[in-house]
Amino acid sequence: MARRLAIVGGDAAGMSAASSARRRDPELEVVAFERGAYTSYSACGIPYLVGGLVADADRLVSRSPDEHRSRGIDVRTRCEVVAIDLGARTLTVRAATGRESTEPFDELVVATGADAVAPPIEGAWAIEPARTVGAAERLRHALERGGRAAVVIGGGYIGLEMAEAFADRGLQVTMIEQADQVMSTLDADMAAHVQDAAEGHGIRVLVGASVEEIIVDEAGAPVAVRTSTETFDADHVVVGTGARPAVAVAREAGLQVGDSGALRVDDHQRCPGHDGVFAAGDCAESHHRLLDRQVNIQLGTHANKQGRIAGVNATGGDERFPGVIGTAVSKICRYEVGRTGLGEAEAAGAGIEVVSATIKDRTRAGYYPGAGPIWVKLVAEPGSGRLLGGQIVGVEGAAKRIDVLATAVWTGLAVEELALLDLAYAPPFSGVYDPLLIAARATAKLV
Amino acid sequence: MARRLAIVGGDAAGMSAASSARRRDPELEVVAFERGAYTSYSACGIPYLVGGLVADADRLVSRSPDEHRSRGIDVRTRCEVVAIDLGARTLTVRAATGRESTEPFDELVVATGADAVAPPIEGAWAIEPARTVGAAERLRHALERGGRAAVVIGGGYIGLEMAEAFADRGLQVTMIEQADQVMSTLDADMAAHVQDAAEGHGIRVLVGASVEEIIVDEAGAPVAVRTSTETFDADHVVVGTGARPAVAVAREAGLQVGDSGALRVDDHQRCPGHDGVFAAGDCAESHHRLLDRQVNIQLGTHANKQGRIAGVNATGGDERFPGVIGTAVSKICRYEVGRTGLGEAEAAGAGIEVVSATIKDRTRAGYYPGAGPIWVKLVAEPGSGRLLGGQIVGVEGAAKRIDVLATAVWTGLAVEELALLDLAYAPPFSGVYDPLLIAARATAKLV
Repeated sequence: MARRLAIVGGDAAGMSAASSARRRDPELEVVAFERGAYTSYSACGIPYLVGGLVADADRLVSRSPDEHRSRGIDVRTRCEVVAIDLGARTLTVRAATGRESTEPFDELVVATGADAVAPPIEGAWAIEPARTVGAAERLRHALERGGRAAVVIGGGYIGLEMAEAFADRGLQVTMIEQADQVMSTLDADMAAHVQDAAEGHGIRVLVGASVEEIIVDEAGAPVAVRTSTETFDADHVVVGTGARPAVAVAREAGLQVGDSGALRVDDHQRCPGHDGVFAAGDCAESHHRLLDRQVNIQLGTHANKQGRIAGVNATGGDERFPGVIGTAVSKICRYEVGRTGLGEAEAAGAGIEVVSATIKDRTRAGYYPGAGPIWVKLVAEPGSGRLLGGQIVGVEGAAKRIDVLATAVWTGLAVEELALLDLAYAPPFSGVYDPLLIAARATAKLV
Repeated sequence: MARRLAIVGGDAAGMSAASSARRRDPELEVVAFERGAYTSYSACGIPYLVGGLVADADRLVSRSPDEHRSRGIDVRTRCEVVAIDLGARTLTVRAATGRESTEPFDELVVATGADAVAPPIEGAWAIEPARTVGAAERLRHALERGGRAAVVIGGGYIGLEMAEAFADRGLQVTMIEQADQVMSTLDADMAAHVQDAAEGHGIRVLVGASVEEIIVDEAGAPVAVRTSTETFDADHVVVGTGARPAVAVAREAGLQVGDSGALRVDDHQRCPGHDGVFAAGDCAESHHRLLDRQVNIQLGTHANKQGRIAGVNATGGDERFPGVIGTAVSKICRYEVGRTGLGEAEAAGAGIEVVSATIKDRTRAGYYPGAGPIWVKLVAEPGSGRLLGGQIVGVEGAAKRIDVLATAVWTGLAVEELALLDLAYAPPFSGVYDPLLIAARATAKLV
């Protein structure tokens, strides 16, 4: 009889695992259980759907259940795995009808993703997290029915992207962030530019402000948002205050959960102590190469890679996930924002001594049309000058430069060497010294 | 008495040397001789001036002679150094008036740049090389006086940029290239996309075609260009068939010239055998880190770095130029083009065995507006998988990714590791797997 690989969760990590296993072993039975209606969709694209940049929800789906089925993967949508029995090697699956069934497996990949954290605010129950294609569609339809004002609670990158989407639809937008800065993945000095961009887009940004209540009408629709000092009209409310790994079922089954709150895995995505059981994506930990500890970073790029590797290793392969360094990028109004490695504040928090320099330059030769500001901040190890991290904010063309810094951080390049590296120059792309070279030289002087 | 540093050549390398020496040693006398009227101008910007993207020639000058003078550098424009006496440590300088004078030096930086190579074509004498701000201004004035047709001889990046500039001014443009492909710095398969872009912009591109004559009228103005098979009307002609290091005076003085035709220098920009004599920029050799031999690559980015290092070392410093890996970028019509390290053909020419893979992808998530094609070609060492080079062609956002590959080539990263590197992802910037990761994985399979 054929062996059976079961996958819990049908988004990026789960379906990557399913697909790679399918390709590697044509004999294997591959079944994936997804509690929602969609598979392999881009949650990262939701703000663009809400804002109207993307016209159709289907465009966010890179592969539908039927497409997966036509490739020999048995996808069961609207099927939630409510229990895992690692001893019996079975799953308890609850269908949309409420009927439960038992499904056997030989190998298992847990890819349950993450769930929004509802903030401890009165009225928060009324707000559906905009984390799925379905929720995004409901939000978009609500927007199309009208409304003048929106409030976004939480100033991380998702909150900022959603605020921009609302503003693009002509709404008056207020963003409320509890911390003293937006985008806590950046140092405060760099985050200030992002706040400028949001404000320049017409978004009112409140930092250091706590929401006390989301006021809803009898139908459960939002009416206003109240902080300790002010009340804001709100026909639409989005909560973007983070998500936590969805590990309840796996934990209940006996899989280990690390300090990050995500499932423990080794560098082959194996769950320690349980042969043939893997985890990948937002529900799993990753090894942070600079901090040298396990972290939980919820990003599609890691989910895809880890899922693929889980699928390879679940079918007898031997592939290693090399870990992460905290690279991320986003587009916030007129600025692009990138970060990799350790920030100055993050390093201080981890007790790591660093030097740091920030430069401001232009994205193109000064005389070339479309040149605009770019800020680059680098963080390096004193003495050796080894690059530990970088942050970039600037106009179009700025942020993907973060990948150069990611490569340099990954390979342990020193800022002194980075300053003389043979990077490309032409007037449409940079001044004769690329901003990264200028930043590296400024940092090298402090090492 | 103060020591005296003399600089021969007032563009990127020369004035970088002058500026860094000036900053390091306030007592030093710094004098720079420039045969033209401008200093520190961007030759790379000339096509944009000709095409009208840049309105004013002054914008290409990053620092004028007067600005340098106000910083304590004695700039002598329209002064050509016609002889160097390394024994007596003097220069013979000819002013615009024809008067010659003798100028002493203690340290010397030779930064004489490169001169256009006039092709062995009848009538070529009539075409002024568009390599200086003055020449670009004259060409622009000629364009403003009228004309319908232009011919560009030579299909390298400068020829392509000039052809685009002419087309942007509404001229009918023909480009004639002797080799079988445009842009010989790329492999033929990648260069084909660049040719597509030029043709899509309305430029007629002839490859494998030789110009036999530039037909000029009695006043020396171009009328037509004749190949062996056809004659093209040409109110304007540009020749972009390369440039050769301007080393005549330095060679005459006894400085060594390498196989590349450029001045020999060590890794401190010192001319071997001559204490206190340095060379930098287009007239000098650079160490190619992959070929492990001296090459001559004429680019502003190297000129600036080498000039600065020459200035540092001429004032008692100890800074090393780490060499080059052949990184370059340009924008050709709708595509951006980048290359670094060794191409497939280049490696074959050097007797280096490689594997290579090319992928086509999109610059952004498929559903995000503005997504367009990007081709990435990687070249790696068999066995080790070490990345040896990369080439990129694609729409906006494509080409500066070459810097990631440059960093990976520089640090000796293997394609297998590159394929799992933590690069940034968000829908406005790439699909969930960056095109570089996809290309690395495709190449890793062949290693």
